[in-house]
Amino acid sequence: MKAERANVMLSALKLARGIEAGELTPRAALEMCAEAIAAREKDVRAFTVLDLDAARRAAEKKNLSGLPLRGLPVAFKDIYDTADFPTQYGSPIYAGNRPRADATAVVMVRHAGGVGIGKTVTTEFASMVPPATRNPHNLGHTPGGSSSGSCAAIAAGMVPVAFGTQTAGSVIRPAAFCGVAGFKPSYRLIPLVGVKDVSWHLDTAGVFAADIVDVAFAAGAVTGRDLRVDGKTPAAPHIALTRTHLWNEASPAMRNAVETAARAAEAAGAKVSDLTLPPMLEQAYAAQFVIQDYETARSLAFEYDRHRDMIDPRLCEALESGLKISIDDYDAARGVSSRGRRVLADAMANYDVILTPSAPGAAPEGFATTGNPMFNRLWTLMGAPCVNVPGMSDGELPLGIQIVGRFGRDRAALEAALFVERAIAGKTDV
Amino acid sequence: MKAERANVMLSALKLARGIEAGELTPRAALEMCAEAIAAREKDVRAFTVLDLDAARRAAEKKNLSGLPLRGLPVAFKDIYDTADFPTQYGSPIYAGNRPRADATAVVMVRHAGGVGIGKTVTTEFASMVPPATRNPHNLGHTPGGSSSGSCAAIAAGMVPVAFGTQTAGSVIRPAAFCGVAGFKPSYRLIPLVGVKDVSWHLDTAGVFAADIVDVAFAAGAVTGRDLRVDGKTPAAPHIALTRTHLWNEASPAMRNAVETAARAAEAAGAKVSDLTLPPMLEQAYAAQFVIQDYETARSLAFEYDRHRDMIDPRLCEALESGLKISIDDYDAARGVSSRGRRVLADAMANYDVILTPSAPGAAPEGFATTGNPMFNRLWTLMGAPCVNVPGMSDGELPLGIQIVGRFGRDRAALEAALFVERAIAGKTDV
Repeated sequence: MKAERANVMLSALKLARGIEAGELTPRAALEMCAEAIAAREKDVRAFTVLDLDAARRAAEKKNLSGLPLRGLPVAFKDIYDTADFPTQYGSPIYAGNRPRADATAVVMVRHAGGVGIGKTVTTEFASMVPPATRNPHNLGHTPGGSSSGSCAAIAAGMVPVAFGTQTAGSVIRPAAFCGVAGFKPSYRLIPLVGVKDVSWHLDTAGVFAADIVDVAFAAGAVTGRDLRVDGKTPAAPHIALTRTHLWNEASPAMRNAVETAARAAEAAGAKVSDLTLPPMLEQAYAAQFVIQDYETARSLAFEYDRHRDMIDPRLCEALESGLKISIDDYDAARGVSSRGRRVLADAMANYDVILTPSAPGAAPEGFATTGNPMFNRLWTLMGAPCVNVPGMSDGELPLGIQIVGRFGRDRAALEAALFVERAIAGKTDV
Repeated sequence: MKAERANVMLSALKLARGIEAGELTPRAALEMCAEAIAAREKDVRAFTVLDLDAARRAAEKKNLSGLPLRGLPVAFKDIYDTADFPTQYGSPIYAGNRPRADATAVVMVRHAGGVGIGKTVTTEFASMVPPATRNPHNLGHTPGGSSSGSCAAIAAGMVPVAFGTQTAGSVIRPAAFCGVAGFKPSYRLIPLVGVKDVSWHLDTAGVFAADIVDVAFAAGAVTGRDLRVDGKTPAAPHIALTRTHLWNEASPAMRNAVETAARAAEAAGAKVSDLTLPPMLEQAYAAQFVIQDYETARSLAFEYDRHRDMIDPRLCEALESGLKISIDDYDAARGVSSRGRRVLADAMANYDVILTPSAPGAAPEGFATTGNPMFNRLWTLMGAPCVNVPGMSDGELPLGIQIVGRFGRDRAALEAALFVERAIAGKTDV
């Protein structure tokens, strides 16, 4: 069964080609966003702030169509500092906060010819506290977090490119839940200067778009790297089907989706092998919690000390737990992480990419949680490029499968993701 | 000839012990700072802002004497965000900037029982543009940069502990020029959350104090790590005397100081061997420039785009040069850096530390430059812990020698620095 898309998503690549060909103006692309926003934002609640009029003025600038993003509208998770929009980090502590400078990624988007149209909802300080945003595929379900608004805005066709961040699973998981392409590049491929810190060894900027070619196009345009995969058909990859020790935590539908994708990729010419990860990587998985909790408690120490009453009790509890982690446990976790990176590099030496779930299943019903990032934590810690491949469904909601590449081989990860996306395109019932 | 100390420096460790023993109060320690500030600040110009009255109130708090720093005054380079002090990053663009939160290191100092007394002069965005601060040993000389005010404040006895940052050589070089102990820990030992970004692969928080035991005490207190070296006498280290390809750029006095320190350490029982670095590390040295320039231009892209007329022309030129670096050259430099770390780890496998100059010589006369960080760039890129060992002189001004440890072995670096400091203590004429 195909994912029932709540709206027609906007393909960044198609829009950019339309502008390049003179068939479309940046302003016209913006009006497509404005229409979707008018139709859906009241229900979806993807944005914290929008300035379509300012975006209209920016979209009229003459030089945009010669730049890689060609004047396309872009939205930023509200933990990216912006001088032109209030920036609240999902917290009442920062009500009315207006940074003096843009985050570097925001400037890079502008240099690439992108037009910022607004800020998207983040969970409180990019934590696990659920926000007000709804899943465009079913308003009774979470869109995932913490990059909730960015994913929902893509899924609802409100914007062709949006930025988020991942510390545990905040790019890949919501992308899976919302049925969009999500790309968490190798650690630090995209600068985090001017993005509110959560966990400095983990925080990674990521990009959302409709499909794999779109997210690769946007990431390539913004970073100036050769990441576009819309040229020649990617070579058939050698895929390591990796169930990990968490496999039984995945829903039957998700396990089926991964197996189906593997078979489809194989049928399309890919070599697919089973890979059992070295047991040491289970320790690395456990180390991710220690590093995240220790660092988050330090990153938000000022807010905790001075404004505790304005922090959600669930986040307060997490911070208190993080403050109790000893420096020895933290340093040990860092050591495990470094060893884990070497172990993973060796384990992946004979494969191009890993195929594994993006999340335990489809987006949970209700708003008690933003879902579980268990299928993302290890890869974030390893700094590996991760791609959520959209296009499958449990019959009701999207199911995302994940391609994990080798550190620094982002292009290969995107190529393999495209290969798998195409392989499953004719075969999305699971 | 012994360094002529412009003022008696305040030993953080002795002050802390005095407070612990009930011989001194935090308030009394603060008044020692206030006296030195009253006597010297007009000439030295170490601070951008001071609030001694607020510090006096904080120093009276009852719980301080039970905490590791025991109420000692601490100063922060003005690129650390502070909610209680204006934070200007050395730039008129940020006149009147008052961050909403403290940098994490500032909170950690407070949690450790330190009392912030003010912000110290930084060069403009921690660049090479000379600031107004003078060298307390001779007001006609630069104190070095970019942590100019923090080093000068320690040298002039104005404060027992101060924080800085190093991207090329901004901790070790000014520490050498000012004759103070400087500790640039392993990359990320001290969090940089809330510190203005310059170059994200290089920026490292560092600590200044009077002597090696003081800087180790302060770094241990703030990070909660076992870094104090004032207990038992450190074991005699195996020292690699490393002249590097830049050796002939060092002044005769500096080369003599390093050789003298090596002989003194040997006489005190250390094993000293000559180490010629693998030639590949010359490429790594060259890569440091590429990474720093590329990243700095992106970190300050907003300021450059919107406020170019308020940026010093020399910094503008550096930013423009950084903007021209291609992504391929940058990625290649990152690859060289990764390989360099492995090569250096292998080269150091049989040694505890490297001994090498901290700077080309003593502080240059005049204020045209803040001196050259050539003897620091490689180690910063390698993420290695570096310590400036004070106590030598060219007869007029201090000469600093540098101990470089293995990544993550910060305590061993501090122990070796203490060993060398003690070895040369009776033997400081060069």
